[in-house]
Amino acid sequence: MGVEERRQQLIGVALELFGRRSPEEVSIDEIAAAAGISRPLVYHYFPGKQSLYEAALRRAADELADRFVEPPEGPLGARLLRVMERFFDFVEEHGPGFSALMRGGPAAGSSTANAMIDEVRRAAYEQILAHLGVTDPSARLELVVRSWVSLTESTALLWLDGRRIPRGELQLQLVHDFAALAAVSAAYDGEMASLLLHVLADEPVDGPFGELVDRLATLLPKVPAATARSAGPGFRAGGTSA
Amino acid sequence: MGVEERRQQLIGVALELFGRRSPEEVSIDEIAAAAGISRPLVYHYFPGKQSLYEAALRRAADELADRFVEPPEGPLGARLLRVMERFFDFVEEHGPGFSALMRGGPAAGSSTANAMIDEVRRAAYEQILAHLGVTDPSARLELVVRSWVSLTESTALLWLDGRRIPRGELQLQLVHDFAALAAVSAAYDGEMASLLLHVLADEPVDGPFGELVDRLATLLPKVPAATARSAGPGFRAGGTSA
Repeated sequence: MGVEERRQQLIGVALELFGRRSPEEVSIDEIAAAAGISRPLVYHYFPGKQSLYEAALRRAADELADRFVEPPEGPLGARLLRVMERFFDFVEEHGPGFSALMRGGPAAGSSTANAMIDEVRRAAYEQILAHLGVTDPSARLELVVRSWVSLTESTALLWLDGRRIPRGELQLQLVHDFAALAAVSAAYDGEMASLLLHVLADEPVDGPFGELVDRLATLLPKVPAATARSAGPGFRAGGTSA
Repeated sequence: MGVEERRQQLIGVALELFGRRSPEEVSIDEIAAAAGISRPLVYHYFPGKQSLYEAALRRAADELADRFVEPPEGPLGARLLRVMERFFDFVEEHGPGFSALMRGGPAAGSSTANAMIDEVRRAAYEQILAHLGVTDPSARLELVVRSWVSLTESTALLWLDGRRIPRGELQLQLVHDFAALAAVSAAYDGEMASLLLHVLADEPVDGPFGELVDRLATLLPKVPAATARSAGPGFRAGGTSA
């Protein structure tokens, strides 16, 4: 094998091992054995475990960022749902390593690792802005998108911790959470309201956003604070019977 | 000063310094100078910077957990809003230190520090369950509450990074986000729907939840997917004119 080929093989082996357990639990001896080479030869390609770990993270970060890429076609809800499916595929493949990295252990919490995490977050953020067709986001839109990216991470981590809710349900829920966080912002900000209504205008009734709106429209009239205003526009008088 | 008194004074001085800058940027010399004692005397009380940092974190964690405590009286939205006010007070007082800790730098990312962060998250989670009157949460409720705690952290971090949105607005938004995430879960889960409706039943029309429901009730009929069902129960036919 050539130098670069061997390096890539070692990165692949390391990524597999670091994905299944936390970095502290993986030894260079184990990586060498899995790659079928000697321990000194591993050191020939990488100065130490940390550099091999960071190379594996690099590959994982690139792979994850690739999964965010979605053609800008069709309703936004369906696009986001496909990205969530691929994101959970990634989380499932790299579960323990993903947890160890995101929870920040001794080996994980290096500034290089943190910079890569931030880079992936930024890639996710920029993909969403591109799909929304926004190039110059307001502070409120930036907050909604970045805080949703963070919510996605924490939901995936909570899922890995016991898997008590089917991932398909969480993927859909995260798409809905995006709409919900945007709607909260839109309730108080005209610019966000325009953007939200623009996005929802293209959503089919049977898409993820349409279904949520439908279900909430059934739930909302049961809320006393809403029915207190049942005489107002948009709600039927006596909507509590819904 | 007695030993414990001196230790407490040093922790106070350290917390003040670690709050204003990241731990790497604060030296033992500086802490000694701020406390008005010699460097060797600091080492007499704490074996090194890391142990002093962890003692300062311990105090900050206890202080933050104390701020979550709110009497179980009155509507839930108003209670949550008061807690958010006190949480942002804390974030404002310890801004740079809070960022450095939560972003996980070399000094911050110790297992002791991570355990304390998790402990504070758990305190927040348990306070919310207590206010909801739930002792045995379902997986879906646990997810909503824990992911909202995480959203609160990330919103505070994004706020510290430029403070482009007034904190009062974010405090209210986080209360609304809680309702929004609960509503998304309630839209698909009967148990969550019962809990949400039970909570909202006690909310005054002019409280934070009542106001949000009101604003969303104005926004929702403008969504085509909702108006496509305008003949259904709960919505007025022709609600688009709202």
